[in-house]
Amino acid sequence: MESSKSTEAYPMKGGDGVCSYTNNSSYQKSLSEVAMSFICEAVAEKLAVENLACGHPIRIADLGCSIGPNTFIAVENIINSVQIKYETLTISAPPDFQVFFNDHISNDFNTLFKTLPANKQYFAAGVPGSFYGRLFPRASIHVFHSSFALHWLSKVPKEVTEKSSGAWNKGRVHYGGADDGVIMAFRQQYMKDMEGFLKARADEVVCGGLVVVLMPGRPNEVPHCECIGNVLFEVLGCCLLAMAKQGKIAEETVESLNIPIYYASPQELEEIVDRNGCFTIERMEGLAHIAEPETKHAAGRLGMGIRVGVEGIFKGHLQDEMIDELFESYTKKLEQAPSMYSSGGAAILYSVLRRKGKIYNR
Amino acid sequence: MESSKSTEAYPMKGGDGVCSYTNNSSYQKSLSEVAMSFICEAVAEKLAVENLACGHPIRIADLGCSIGPNTFIAVENIINSVQIKYETLTISAPPDFQVFFNDHISNDFNTLFKTLPANKQYFAAGVPGSFYGRLFPRASIHVFHSSFALHWLSKVPKEVTEKSSGAWNKGRVHYGGADDGVIMAFRQQYMKDMEGFLKARADEVVCGGLVVVLMPGRPNEVPHCECIGNVLFEVLGCCLLAMAKQGKIAEETVESLNIPIYYASPQELEEIVDRNGCFTIERMEGLAHIAEPETKHAAGRLGMGIRVGVEGIFKGHLQDEMIDELFESYTKKLEQAPSMYSSGGAAILYSVLRRKGKIYNR
Repeated sequence: MESSKSTEAYPMKGGDGVCSYTNNSSYQKSLSEVAMSFICEAVAEKLAVENLACGHPIRIADLGCSIGPNTFIAVENIINSVQIKYETLTISAPPDFQVFFNDHISNDFNTLFKTLPANKQYFAAGVPGSFYGRLFPRASIHVFHSSFALHWLSKVPKEVTEKSSGAWNKGRVHYGGADDGVIMAFRQQYMKDMEGFLKARADEVVCGGLVVVLMPGRPNEVPHCECIGNVLFEVLGCCLLAMAKQGKIAEETVESLNIPIYYASPQELEEIVDRNGCFTIERMEGLAHIAEPETKHAAGRLGMGIRVGVEGIFKGHLQDEMIDELFESYTKKLEQAPSMYSSGGAAILYSVLRRKGKIYNR
Repeated sequence: MESSKSTEAYPMKGGDGVCSYTNNSSYQKSLSEVAMSFICEAVAEKLAVENLACGHPIRIADLGCSIGPNTFIAVENIINSVQIKYETLTISAPPDFQVFFNDHISNDFNTLFKTLPANKQYFAAGVPGSFYGRLFPRASIHVFHSSFALHWLSKVPKEVTEKSSGAWNKGRVHYGGADDGVIMAFRQQYMKDMEGFLKARADEVVCGGLVVVLMPGRPNEVPHCECIGNVLFEVLGCCLLAMAKQGKIAEETVESLNIPIYYASPQELEEIVDRNGCFTIERMEGLAHIAEPETKHAAGRLGMGIRVGVEGIFKGHLQDEMIDELFESYTKKLEQAPSMYSSGGAAILYSVLRRKGKIYNR
């Protein structure tokens, strides 16, 4: 569930080691595959054909790309979809494709570049920086894509880390079972971040162009404390607190840790898109949660997946051996209560936004 | 003289150590500064204004950018020149600028991205790959810039490494004092590479757009063996051979080493541009060699500059201690014969090419 995407302050683990993203991103991959057909459909039905008619290059950006290979699969899929559209429309020459791979400045772009597919059918570029701000010239991108990245907040909301604040998140690393004040602080940060995201994309995407987003979220009717992502972090927080009680780590360490992730509902996302006003919502829905089987292996894989996603946050706060111990005890907990992750309560939020406005080429 | 730019097979030294590019690129920098006013002039007089009039983003690419900071200075200079042109033409809103930093896939883009100027006035992207092939969509770049990169060949010409070949470069690491066959092999590789470069740029640059190139070269009337760059490599080859004679390294090591650099004359470059046929030569001239003072310090700096440029080639062939010893003895040689590098015989080749054809915006 948890993303492999990193925020600036919490770089994730590159390379190809046992704890690396490359070797632990199968969950994202299988979900991306589910989303593939949706993206094909979105491009076929919603991308304005006027954008394709003049021999201009088609520019695609993957936001929060990490280091591959999922990003390569996703952009290939988009390109294939555009090419099929060309064929259907019998537009003469297919265009050049330019693909921008974006992630935080701390992302390992060297690895990304070295693993670019040899037979890629596009011109590749890396773009460092936060997608909550501007990254591209005005009206220069035809399709934005972002997979498992937009649930990461740009930062931990300040008030949840301050003892003097009414929203202090004592004894937890996330907002799952916390008081309303803490939940509200995370929610407000999400709203602010998404507003920045949509404002920037509205500037950058061509009219009639698409913003396709896939991210873990929460069904409208499910309360935060029952959302599987929140539950999983709640358990992680408990494991950490147990270590503090055993005197293995300082209690202040637990207080200082917060995972900057928010699981939005479709309704919340709709509100932000409507307030922005530059996009029509072409599609917004929850994809079914792919239930993990109740096996030891599944628990181990889930534990490792979450470790890869959030480990960067723990570095600097905890010694490496403590992190190892934390995730060992965490995986054991998951093994003991498989119903926690094999049941529902989660949703992958899939949305296709289309830029309003008069369509002309830039 | 020798470039800090690397070929794919010979990555140069990143980081900020004593032998790093960042700390040893002052020669390139001072020459780039000399070229600044030329670039301003080229943009002011030669860049087609029709390209600027429609609110489209202006795209600039620096080819063979290495890791900065020189590349940042160069692109700022180009952007300032375009902005001045806008002001002069009283075109309403200045455009967005997008800058593509290109170098080989082995370049340290992570460092490049981390050192991007905080106050940059452009959207940055990194583009990995050889500039002897295509890197960008058709007609998508307004100004190409390349400084101290285009004298690097894409590879060592095969025939100079083969004992059975008539052009075998025995006992040398470069073609400076070699037989005509060796020189011709290097020259042909250069011609082939430059043809590929111009063909790719002709596709990628907008009509009326510019290709600005600064590279070490050789005045028309100066024979190869007197060109300072060649002389300096000839001396380096002698030092290496001396080490082989002392039994410190195998003679085969000398045989296996060739520095893939060619110092072209303006006449040679003109020939290739004419043959390509897509560009007008707006300017082509030799900039004066900035003579080094005849001091021990100057010799040390020169030796270090050359080491930074070519060290990557020696790695894998020589142990680190041997490389240290080689460049120590090399610097001593330079100290002993300062006239070698304080006199003329070198030229920095500066050229501005403009894409022919009907100007329209993409």
